[in-house]
Amino acid sequence: MRIVDFRSDTLTVPTEEMREAMYEARVGDDVYGEDPTVKELEEMAAAKAGKESALFVTSGTMGNQLALLSHTKRGEEVILEENSHIYNAEVGGAAFLSGLQPRPIKGNRGIMDLEDIKRAIRPEDIHFPRTGLICIENTHNMAGGVVIPVYQMEKVYSLAREHNIPVHLDGARIFNAAIHIGCDVKELTQYCDSVMFCLSKGLCAPVGSILAGDKSFVDKAKRYRKMIGGGMRQAGVIAAPGIIALEKMVDRLEEDHKKAFGLAAGLSGIGGLTLDKERVDTNIVMVDVRNTGCKAHELTDVFREKGILAVAINERMIRFVTHKYISEEDVQYAVDTIRGVLS
Amino acid sequence: MRIVDFRSDTLTVPTEEMREAMYEARVGDDVYGEDPTVKELEEMAAAKAGKESALFVTSGTMGNQLALLSHTKRGEEVILEENSHIYNAEVGGAAFLSGLQPRPIKGNRGIMDLEDIKRAIRPEDIHFPRTGLICIENTHNMAGGVVIPVYQMEKVYSLAREHNIPVHLDGARIFNAAIHIGCDVKELTQYCDSVMFCLSKGLCAPVGSILAGDKSFVDKAKRYRKMIGGGMRQAGVIAAPGIIALEKMVDRLEEDHKKAFGLAAGLSGIGGLTLDKERVDTNIVMVDVRNTGCKAHELTDVFREKGILAVAINERMIRFVTHKYISEEDVQYAVDTIRGVLS
Amino acid sequence: MRIVDFRSDTLTVPTEEMREAMYEARVGDDVYGEDPTVKELEEMAAAKAGKESALFVTSGTMGNQLALLSHTKRGEEVILEENSHIYNAEVGGAAFLSGLQPRPIKGNRGIMDLEDIKRAIRPEDIHFPRTGLICIENTHNMAGGVVIPVYQMEKVYSLAREHNIPVHLDGARIFNAAIHIGCDVKELTQYCDSVMFCLSKGLCAPVGSILAGDKSFVDKAKRYRKMIGGGMRQAGVIAAPGIIALEKMVDRLEEDHKKAFGLAAGLSGIGGLTLDKERVDTNIVMVDVRNTGCKAHELTDVFREKGILAVAINERMIRFVTHKYISEEDVQYAVDTIRGVLS
Amino acid sequence: MRIVDFRSDTLTVPTEEMREAMYEARVGDDVYGEDPTVKELEEMAAAKAGKESALFVTSGTMGNQLALLSHTKRGEEVILEENSHIYNAEVGGAAFLSGLQPRPIKGNRGIMDLEDIKRAIRPEDIHFPRTGLICIENTHNMAGGVVIPVYQMEKVYSLAREHNIPVHLDGARIFNAAIHIGCDVKELTQYCDSVMFCLSKGLCAPVGSILAGDKSFVDKAKRYRKMIGGGMRQAGVIAAPGIIALEKMVDRLEEDHKKAFGLAAGLSGIGGLTLDKERVDTNIVMVDVRNTGCKAHELTDVFREKGILAVAINERMIRFVTHKYISEEDVQYAVDTIRGVLS
Repeated sequence: MRIVDFRSDTLTVPTEEMREAMYEARVGDDVYGEDPTVKELEEMAAAKAGKESALFVTSGTMGNQLALLSHTKRGEEVILEENSHIYNAEVGGAAFLSGLQPRPIKGNRGIMDLEDIKRAIRPEDIHFPRTGLICIENTHNMAGGVVIPVYQMEKVYSLAREHNIPVHLDGARIFNAAIHIGCDVKELTQYCDSVMFCLSKGLCAPVGSILAGDKSFVDKAKRYRKMIGGGMRQAGVIAAPGIIALEKMVDRLEEDHKKAFGLAAGLSGIGGLTLDKERVDTNIVMVDVRNTGCKAHELTDVFREKGILAVAINERMIRFVTHKYISEEDVQYAVDTIRGVLS
Repeated sequence: MRIVDFRSDTLTVPTEEMREAMYEARVGDDVYGEDPTVKELEEMAAAKAGKESALFVTSGTMGNQLALLSHTKRGEEVILEENSHIYNAEVGGAAFLSGLQPRPIKGNRGIMDLEDIKRAIRPEDIHFPRTGLICIENTHNMAGGVVIPVYQMEKVYSLAREHNIPVHLDGARIFNAAIHIGCDVKELTQYCDSVMFCLSKGLCAPVGSILAGDKSFVDKAKRYRKMIGGGMRQAGVIAAPGIIALEKMVDRLEEDHKKAFGLAAGLSGIGGLTLDKERVDTNIVMVDVRNTGCKAHELTDVFREKGILAVAINERMIRFVTHKYISEEDVQYAVDTIRGVLS
Repeated sequence: MRIVDFRSDTLTVPTEEMREAMYEARVGDDVYGEDPTVKELEEMAAAKAGKESALFVTSGTMGNQLALLSHTKRGEEVILEENSHIYNAEVGGAAFLSGLQPRPIKGNRGIMDLEDIKRAIRPEDIHFPRTGLICIENTHNMAGGVVIPVYQMEKVYSLAREHNIPVHLDGARIFNAAIHIGCDVKELTQYCDSVMFCLSKGLCAPVGSILAGDKSFVDKAKRYRKMIGGGMRQAGVIAAPGIIALEKMVDRLEEDHKKAFGLAAGLSGIGGLTLDKERVDTNIVMVDVRNTGCKAHELTDVFREKGILAVAINERMIRFVTHKYISEEDVQYAVDTIRGVLS
Repeated sequence: MRIVDFRSDTLTVPTEEMREAMYEARVGDDVYGEDPTVKELEEMAAAKAGKESALFVTSGTMGNQLALLSHTKRGEEVILEENSHIYNAEVGGAAFLSGLQPRPIKGNRGIMDLEDIKRAIRPEDIHFPRTGLICIENTHNMAGGVVIPVYQMEKVYSLAREHNIPVHLDGARIFNAAIHIGCDVKELTQYCDSVMFCLSKGLCAPVGSILAGDKSFVDKAKRYRKMIGGGMRQAGVIAAPGIIALEKMVDRLEEDHKKAFGLAAGLSGIGGLTLDKERVDTNIVMVDVRNTGCKAHELTDVFREKGILAVAINERMIRFVTHKYISEEDVQYAVDTIRGVLS
């Protein structure tokens, strides 16, 4: 049976070129700072992000958690969007690891209102935790791959600077955002003190993410990385495909977006499915299935039997993610199959 | 100048009888379990709350924080109302001390919708923290001393039990709630696994609160109390007025409510002040001053010059709290003075 | 039966004058900074300790734990003596609350060798926690009330400053040390960045300790005190006897030392008991009972039946502590009784 | 210049066969549990260790820290050897991450005396943290690659079980221990509840370690791994060389031991160097250079100029580690070079 796997772009496997790069990678002991491939990746990544320094980490969660640890003091508060990954999908790490109290703000399609952020910044008072960090997620996964526009990034950053609060950008899919806008990723990352982005996901590297910021920040993050056991030895073998991810896989994200748009167009014509195809910014399509009379996970179970894999986010939403290993034909096949199921 | 201090019922000083009780208190070293007065207070308090065991602590914050520590495992999530004391006025202790991620729910006048709680309980998933505790605040301070009704307590507790999640009641002013309802406080506390209530505030003891629950819970809390340095030596000297607070000060809370109602009635007739006097349940009156054209703290500054002390909660709300040391004449004087200021 | 209770000087109950002071104490809400008696005590205590600022806390443990929190950053290491109170009798709070790794050093009668401290200070290395604090306990309880001499305090402090490491003095019984030396307590406290001392214990106040240091340190500690619930309301009622403790009870510690010396002299003449009476510096007498052929707790059980209470520290050591409520006759009675038991 | 790098066996690079395995690895998304190579490695590793379940982690530190998190409750105490890796080289993670207070015991060549462990187990007392875990390091790195004998493992485990305390084995180099003893590694790992061992180090994999234990323990560890960001996507690419490490590299550790013995024999004949060649159990040689009149790091600087790399552990000890990429000729060359330098 044909399988079309829309569950996530994390499912992408390394390309042939990446496998060759692993095979040939020059390596050393990165704990001793002697892995040339890791160094090359970190320098390239810092340059791309327009930051002074960068650190290779094994996952987006690790990059985000190290950012929380490195920006804040214990007992502070972190402002973030209420459906953000850091708040919902990192096992409560903000509180557990950093002792930070999250202050979630309900965004509009992932975008926090500036007035809400302003109100959430704590005044000095012995009863209150101090606001120690603001996080932005761009693209915003649970809002449906929404791109936070440059001017919004700028406004949040400007407000944060007024209050001497650092800004961390969870940019797991920041290149998708830049591709959508049609700008260099630095247009976005200039408005944050640190950024994490993933080399896996749409960029297809097998493992790894980058945390970038200024040197003193990255030095702190490196110590914390050592403490949690994220320091690796001959890490060049996984940094090598990361270099290819950055060099050769960014531009092709455009194709993933086209496939997502095609999927959205196809699904929006199916009775019972609700989605606004104009609102598909990148490679994620969120579909509301309430009007089918079925629960989301019931539908994904049926889809699975037909070879179409997608994720029930909650009782009424199904998420589809496009990526390199889904072709336009796969998209068409999926639309036809789902139409068949629902009629 | 006549001073009428509505800032808080925490300002109440011990009565003459309480001072005598301190003077005469039988004491021992409570760390050794040898203070008879502390024991007496703890037994009395457990009985009043309908719980197996009770612990004397120095503040409501300590009682709440010990409850969080004792009910949960690190890295869990705690569901609470977004304007609750635990989330806003305990310096981020939930995250810092217990490593708990707060999951705030926007209540309606402090009352969390049952569906919202249900949705907030995390399903089992490797990305999610586990839901470890639900907290209720009754009366709800920032909602304006609102009483959470017995049936609401019952419904939350019943939902929590279905999911094997304990419920902690921040009952800093739980006796005010019981007095308003006209029920024994046990009617309310039967629907929680632990309750904290204050002997200071309306009950006028100089220092101290109670944390009550079953024996194993209180034993845990006692260890944590020792760790944070809350274990005291001849604590009987402050437990003694606590006994009087429980024995003789509960019924008089009725008077505080009457004075609050009088104050609300008076203030609601003043142009520019917005409040619904029907909604004053207990001893707290929240007044919206937006229509005066002044900011809340500007008004409290002017009031202060006239001897009327109240707290600007934010830019547009002023909180007045009645207590033993405010007479009906004081209330009338305050209403007249404020009317004078605003006209 | 006559009871002579040597278990601890924490057992001392407030004097008549202290009870009167409680009865008459001027009070206010200390969370609002309005308790005049607390302020008076804090100013007096800061002056006595020669520090800029002071904070009233409910116990020595609280003072020590707040010091750890306020001096350090999470993940640092704290150097302390291996039998110190902070390491052994504060329920693991250093690690739990502050995320600090203790680095215990085996002292000689409680005194850490300077070379050992030097070796324990971590060099900069990505594998090591940074050394964030050095703690000294004076008098050293488990070493038998040993006084750490001024020159030792000075040497540790000087070494610490070279490495930019703050020094905290657990001075629960620092006045006993000063009385023994015959110096002003400031001679000792000048060689630390912060000091905690107890108003209970030998000074007989019912509840409370002081944490003193410079203003920014105390401000930090105050925020942490609020977080753990150590902020109290009309705390003046327990600060009042604390003032008397500082004013009138310090000089009488001399008597406790004399009684301890008398006790040591008496016990050292009894077969089976091993102690060096020359080494009794203050009000604590440690007796080695190995040669009696009995375990320490077996002996304390027998002593208890005769009205003599003391603590079995481990299998072979029994600790006796003298205080205001033990008279010279009591000491004699105890010696006679114990001699009787052992012969 | 010929370079002989004795700094660590972590410096070993992947073999040609490992590189091929990476190139060909079957992969999937391991967060979804779909990476067949990771699964294969974990099953193989569990079987080798004689445990129910195993987890692939990126480093020994991560494995150890997850073990601490998964075995204990916050605020407990962990007994370990004072020169152990967990206490000294994991950036204070025990306290920071798990809130555990380390209780270091001075071992004899890395072996903790059973009586010392017994004494270190805390009795139940409100002042004490509970003893939550005992850790053993085998081979013991800083003691010079010492093998902890099977009977010692058995005795510690048996004592621990009496007290219901779990035992974690930091077996970063446990295969070196088994090879030295000439036993199956299960002979050793049967005496612990969990074991961490490294696939990098002598086994030459580029990245990765294994944490093994019973299923419920590993499930807990997996959640914590996700929280710290140790969950990886197509981790099969680094699991593949790990499989080869386990299958083909264990037996060759014997050679590393021989080379270490040769090195020790050679160095012990050089004036100024102190070492007991009989005490070289595995692949680590610790040399005391005090009698050369030079400090350790001064000597390693000179050695480095001659192409001999080793690590100054402290002022007087230099550590040499043998591994696959050091030949017998390299050892001879190193001995000759060092003899030349020192004469």
